[in-house]
Amino acid sequence: MPPLPALALTAAEPTASCAPLTRAPLGARDAVDLARVVKALADPARLRLISLISAHEGGEACVCDLIEPLGLSQPTVSHHLKVLVDAGLLTRDKRGVWAFYAIVPQALSALAAVLDAGLTAPASAAPADA
Amino acid sequence: MPPLPALALTAAEPTASCAPLTRAPLGARDAVDLARVVKALADPARLRLISLISAHEGGEACVCDLIEPLGLSQPTVSHHLKVLVDAGLLTRDKRGVWAFYAIVPQALSALAAVLDAGLTAPASAAPADA
Repeated sequence: MPPLPALALTAAEPTASCAPLTRAPLGARDAVDLARVVKALADPARLRLISLISAHEGGEACVCDLIEPLGLSQPTVSHHLKVLVDAGLLTRDKRGVWAFYAIVPQALSALAAVLDAGLTAPASAAPADA
Repeated sequence: MPPLPALALTAAEPTASCAPLTRAPLGARDAVDLARVVKALADPARLRLISLISAHEGGEACVCDLIEPLGLSQPTVSHHLKVLVDAGLLTRDKRGVWAFYAIVPQALSALAAVLDAGLTAPASAAPADA
């Protein structure tokens, strides 16, 4: 199993911010890095892009595949794709005239692991009652 | 034990948007609801608040406990807390002169489940371990 790339937050300098938010104190700098990734997802169109690309044949899609299902213009879709690529949540592979986008499952799963309040395994910090 | 409030997205009308993004198409309306919750977390101070409150004694904290560790003013901290409460990620319990905040672990875990790309089970279906 590959090491989680700390949300692919900073390709050059991976941080150690993969511990769940609810179990380890989040430092100021890690919070800035994490918020940057969360912000990239904080948009309905970008959430749908992740979902659409993931469901697309072969797990990848080009802008041309995404315009109609989203009902947005090509420049708008391209902008949203760029935000997701910059955040490390999508890869972009230029082939011929089109660029093909695929999700980075490690980045999404790392984000999920950070947010998970550990309900599946009783966490050390979980409130026991009330 | 309360049922999972579908990310507490809409208290009045729980949606069925808990399926992982990468495994089920996300509808336009669910995307708007989900983005609202993600947006509430898309801020370094709010991410740190979740972490600080969770780590605080008894799993709850008042504004007075949070000002110093965050290094922000009381009005600013109160604003961030309100955003998190409105998104269903924190509860607020007024006792005497102070309000005490606690995380809603179900909401965080539901959000994590939606974002999780299912790396633990490399199948296109639900993780079928156990």
